[in-house]
Amino acid sequence: MNSTKVAGLTFGKFLIQESQIFYRSPSQLSAAIVNLKPIVPGHVLVLSQRIAPRLQDLTQEEYTDLFQTVRIVQEKIEKHYNAKGSNVAIQDGKVAGQSVYHVHVHILPRLEGDFERNDDVYDKLEAWEPKEGEKIVKRLEVPEDEDRSPRTMKMMEDEATLYKQLFEDGEIGI
Amino acid sequence: MNSTKVAGLTFGKFLIQESQIFYRSPSQLSAAIVNLKPIVPGHVLVLSQRIAPRLQDLTQEEYTDLFQTVRIVQEKIEKHYNAKGSNVAIQDGKVAGQSVYHVHVHILPRLEGDFERNDDVYDKLEAWEPKEGEKIVKRLEVPEDEDRSPRTMKMMEDEATLYKQLFEDGEIGI
Repeated sequence: MNSTKVAGLTFGKFLIQESQIFYRSPSQLSAAIVNLKPIVPGHVLVLSQRIAPRLQDLTQEEYTDLFQTVRIVQEKIEKHYNAKGSNVAIQDGKVAGQSVYHVHVHILPRLEGDFERNDDVYDKLEAWEPKEGEKIVKRLEVPEDEDRSPRTMKMMEDEATLYKQLFEDGEIGI
Repeated sequence: MNSTKVAGLTFGKFLIQESQIFYRSPSQLSAAIVNLKPIVPGHVLVLSQRIAPRLQDLTQEEYTDLFQTVRIVQEKIEKHYNAKGSNVAIQDGKVAGQSVYHVHVHILPRLEGDFERNDDVYDKLEAWEPKEGEKIVKRLEVPEDEDRSPRTMKMMEDEATLYKQLFEDGEIGI
């Protein structure tokens, strides 16, 4: 490719459209995406551009860039939602509940009273991850009998477009 | 002080003895400690040396150092416990379940079958944090009616001593 930009990315086995990506780090080593079934408004994922299952599989440069991206994205998203805090969580390894074997950091901006118990958010997190062998495109076509409905691609693109604007006033952006 | 080393640290309002600290980053900006009521064996905390309530309150240098310390500590602890993964979790802000207003990252090495449901670990995490106004020293003297008993200082010191040894073969240590 002649361009230094990368188009879309794969999240484990899933193809993520460019339109779902709202931020890329300057090095392009990390990206931030909206997701299919957010647990709370503004629940986004920061992931490495390269498919690497575990944090320990990242190079030092990728690792540092990942968490620097978390810092930048968390700030923008919290500000947008007027959140006073976030859960930042990584299921690092299958044994820790990871189901997409590609490093991803959950950022969940929190509002007072959004969950009855603060950590109920984690119960939702377990249900969040696609089951083994399940494809995101399939989930879009066949809504599951769960309380959270998969969103349409249009909804996700609109959200990503909104979030992209959060980064436009800064010096760093896609 | 003539020494560049710092003795002990305060974790929010709590004084942490040097004997509970098993790792300090080369810059001394971050430290890793054992805790009173580990949820799983090897449940440790990485925190900033300076009392800063939220991730966003850390300087860039402190933030980068914190996650670099997480990387180093997670690797050593997982290896020691033969864990194949970890939950890495931050309750960043009161609204996110934080009860000690001092940045700390939970590292929970996981083993197959340690919890019936993977994310039950987070329910335990909520119960983990000391209640507002509660002092660790008080909790040591007055065991609470919970399934996890506070450990003695001796137990914690022994664990910290063990973990310190994990870093002795490397070039980085306390």
